[in-house]
Amino acid sequence: MDEEQENVSTKVASIDPEKILSYIRKKDRKALLTVFEIVPNIDIAEAVNDFEPADLLYIFRAVPSEITADFFDELSSDAKEALIKAMTDKELVEIINEQYADDVADTVNELPANLASRVLRAASKDMRKDINQLLQYAEGTAGSLMTTEYLEFIDTAKVSKVIEEIRSKGKDAETVYTIFVRNAKREFVGTAGLDDLIFAKPDETLGDIMNRDVVSCYTATDQEEVAKMFRRYDLNAMAVLNADSRLVGVITIDDVMDVIVEEQQEDLAHLTNMSASDKPYMELSAWSNAKKCIPWLIALLILGTFTTLVLDRIEKSHIFTLLPMLIAFVPTLMDTGGNAGAQTTGLMIRGLAVDDFGPKDVLKVLWKEFKSALIIAGIVASFAFLWITMEQYTGIVNDAESFPGVNIWAGNCWNLDFFGHTMKNSALISITMGIAVLFSKVIGTLLPLGAAAIKKDPALLSQPMLTTIMDVATLCIYLVMAMAFFPHFA
Amino acid sequence: MDEEQENVSTKVASIDPEKILSYIRKKDRKALLTVFEIVPNIDIAEAVNDFEPADLLYIFRAVPSEITADFFDELSSDAKEALIKAMTDKELVEIINEQYADDVADTVNELPANLASRVLRAASKDMRKDINQLLQYAEGTAGSLMTTEYLEFIDTAKVSKVIEEIRSKGKDAETVYTIFVRNAKREFVGTAGLDDLIFAKPDETLGDIMNRDVVSCYTATDQEEVAKMFRRYDLNAMAVLNADSRLVGVITIDDVMDVIVEEQQEDLAHLTNMSASDKPYMELSAWSNAKKCIPWLIALLILGTFTTLVLDRIEKSHIFTLLPMLIAFVPTLMDTGGNAGAQTTGLMIRGLAVDDFGPKDVLKVLWKEFKSALIIAGIVASFAFLWITMEQYTGIVNDAESFPGVNIWAGNCWNLDFFGHTMKNSALISITMGIAVLFSKVIGTLLPLGAAAIKKDPALLSQPMLTTIMDVATLCIYLVMAMAFFPHFA
Repeated sequence: MDEEQENVSTKVASIDPEKILSYIRKKDRKALLTVFEIVPNIDIAEAVNDFEPADLLYIFRAVPSEITADFFDELSSDAKEALIKAMTDKELVEIINEQYADDVADTVNELPANLASRVLRAASKDMRKDINQLLQYAEGTAGSLMTTEYLEFIDTAKVSKVIEEIRSKGKDAETVYTIFVRNAKREFVGTAGLDDLIFAKPDETLGDIMNRDVVSCYTATDQEEVAKMFRRYDLNAMAVLNADSRLVGVITIDDVMDVIVEEQQEDLAHLTNMSASDKPYMELSAWSNAKKCIPWLIALLILGTFTTLVLDRIEKSHIFTLLPMLIAFVPTLMDTGGNAGAQTTGLMIRGLAVDDFGPKDVLKVLWKEFKSALIIAGIVASFAFLWITMEQYTGIVNDAESFPGVNIWAGNCWNLDFFGHTMKNSALISITMGIAVLFSKVIGTLLPLGAAAIKKDPALLSQPMLTTIMDVATLCIYLVMAMAFFPHFA
Repeated sequence: MDEEQENVSTKVASIDPEKILSYIRKKDRKALLTVFEIVPNIDIAEAVNDFEPADLLYIFRAVPSEITADFFDELSSDAKEALIKAMTDKELVEIINEQYADDVADTVNELPANLASRVLRAASKDMRKDINQLLQYAEGTAGSLMTTEYLEFIDTAKVSKVIEEIRSKGKDAETVYTIFVRNAKREFVGTAGLDDLIFAKPDETLGDIMNRDVVSCYTATDQEEVAKMFRRYDLNAMAVLNADSRLVGVITIDDVMDVIVEEQQEDLAHLTNMSASDKPYMELSAWSNAKKCIPWLIALLILGTFTTLVLDRIEKSHIFTLLPMLIAFVPTLMDTGGNAGAQTTGLMIRGLAVDDFGPKDVLKVLWKEFKSALIIAGIVASFAFLWITMEQYTGIVNDAESFPGVNIWAGNCWNLDFFGHTMKNSALISITMGIAVLFSKVIGTLLPLGAAAIKKDPALLSQPMLTTIMDVATLCIYLVMAMAFFPHFA
């Protein structure tokens, strides 16, 4: 083991795969045990994921199963599969029954059918019942997140009695820090922290010391909702109830952290027009990566047809044929409109994700965005006016056809005709930009809030729709404004 | 209190502000106490945030400070300010010293100077020392996240002795579930769970039962790094050390959840070309919202100058003047290139955020993305070929000038000349698109990984740079390909 750390900002005992392999080859059981004592399971798992099944198996034979059960859970799906194939029935029974039912249920979900049924056969009767129960809940619900191993006591139980029971059987529960309390009707009524028990007098009852201001959810509650409650109420564990208000499971905070990250990664994926992946990047094949990109690119390509259609007509309109320079500003106008809308869509997606507001606040939010859109449109359009004038004077764009020799080096920038014309171009483009920004912020507010109101993922639909709507809208605004500015050309 | 819940998916006792106000007006102390017993603090705080200071103050006078201390911390900054102004010195002393030093430090950070110093004067000498210590750490470091109230014992302490001490003074610690263990040299050596103590024999020492495979960080460690470790190692609390490996603070999981959300919200903001906000959306004024948008829009507008410059030249080139239809596809080409790149940038930002890979894996990641980019470019370009041919046949774009009466209704779609020309256009555009997708995926990989390598936020710079680079690159590819396809027009 190499205690040197590569990262100075954190302190973790690191481990070299070669060293572990050499312990295995030398059958050095003692050294392996020391590794498990000093190095966290996830780090050992990452070091050995690519080992041969026989080498992996040796670890499980050399180290007691109460230590390797958690370690097993951290291995990659491939390593788990290889191990399950290689283990004897007896070994499998040991390793499976040391784990928590929800972890085994997750493993079963990932395995091919023949191995899954091997795992289920290895599970004890009680655990098999729990696993089958857990496998029934739809992905993304509280039921699929919860564990069935928790501590539940009746509210009339004495503190001393509870501590004694925890001592004798607590090790099987996934969290012993929160004790769940039910009444005589088997309804969930409150929780007590392990610390509350320690601070309490031995002859107080759970009913005396429990917290009654607890929050709970149902098996069908969306996992995103669960995550929001954990954050809002600073929970460590939450009760999951069935329709009769009876406790059927418990969600612990470590699973919720993963949900928060997963949900936000999904938002991020949709915001960049991709399908989300539940696999780590490095485990994705080139083809499965491509599959998540292609449908979106093709859908956007098809939506882009509207833009092509409109631009083709505009470009050939009399006015834009006479003023071809105006075409050069089309991407800038589209980009600015699109960017302004994307900012607002992003704000909406973030606000909805952390519950700053909901779809019902649409008017309040719209008014807020409209006010700031007015400020933004005003300032950006004013800047654009100056910048576009500069672009024309310096010849970055060159209105060579209607005004030959227009650029600054040609020495005719004080030509009054040119001066007036330049200003008119700048005004046209910057006013179009201002209107596009305003419009785009309004659409950028309405699309995600609308999606949320009909219970769709606000990030999933808003972004591609916004791009298409804004591209077409910007072009139309541009055409109408150009006709207003240059009526004699139209 | 109204036990009816508006949201069927979760179960929380809800509270009506009017009811609380009526209890205050009636000076019904008992009803108020019941509210605090049944309703979570954050919900009460949200109900009363807008009350008059005198009404708020009554709550603090009616309800004991050990209950209201946590409630105070959940109030909005405005409510806190009003209360601190209205409270007597004695009341302030009580409420401040019931809180945790890190929460008070956060409050002090938000208050105007005169109120901040009032709070510091109210704090006990020990707490003042802790607060001043905490205020020294830079925002975003482990030091600024940590609490100074935790349980630390020497490794030779007997379990029975430790439990006894926790019972007598544990209430002051922010987490009693994790006990931190030091050796005789005052170095941090491990942790023990409260459950480990309960399961242990009374005469075992902490050294016998503690976990030695623990991870820790330093006061200067970045909070994003801390959050990653909590997730990776499923921690509930983590030790923060000074340069001498001595424990100086502890970070608890509830603070880490907020960091995870904060960091991901920041990524999301930068991905939509905005500055991140640390205030909830509803508390932002129109002007402060606008300020977060405007600099980005203007920067992108300036960067867009390159696009305008290139497009202006291309559009007036001989070849595009002869084939004006090709201009109509410029937005589609730019959008597809931009979208393909944004997908990859998004993937990189997500992968970096959850540590799927780091900047050092650039070659492996680049190769992976290149392989899937080849697949994507091939499929998208093939589809584009068919789609663009269709667009021409149906007259969505209309090459009226070079080939009069080109569209399907004009009945000349079998004209061989037109057929060949149409195919040639489609080939030109789809091949340009394929190359743009490939190029954009490569740039989309390199920009965020490059930013991460120089320790910059990968989302901050990548997105605007990518848009500009891709717009200009796509136009250049288009021009070169057009010259290759129509050499006689060039």
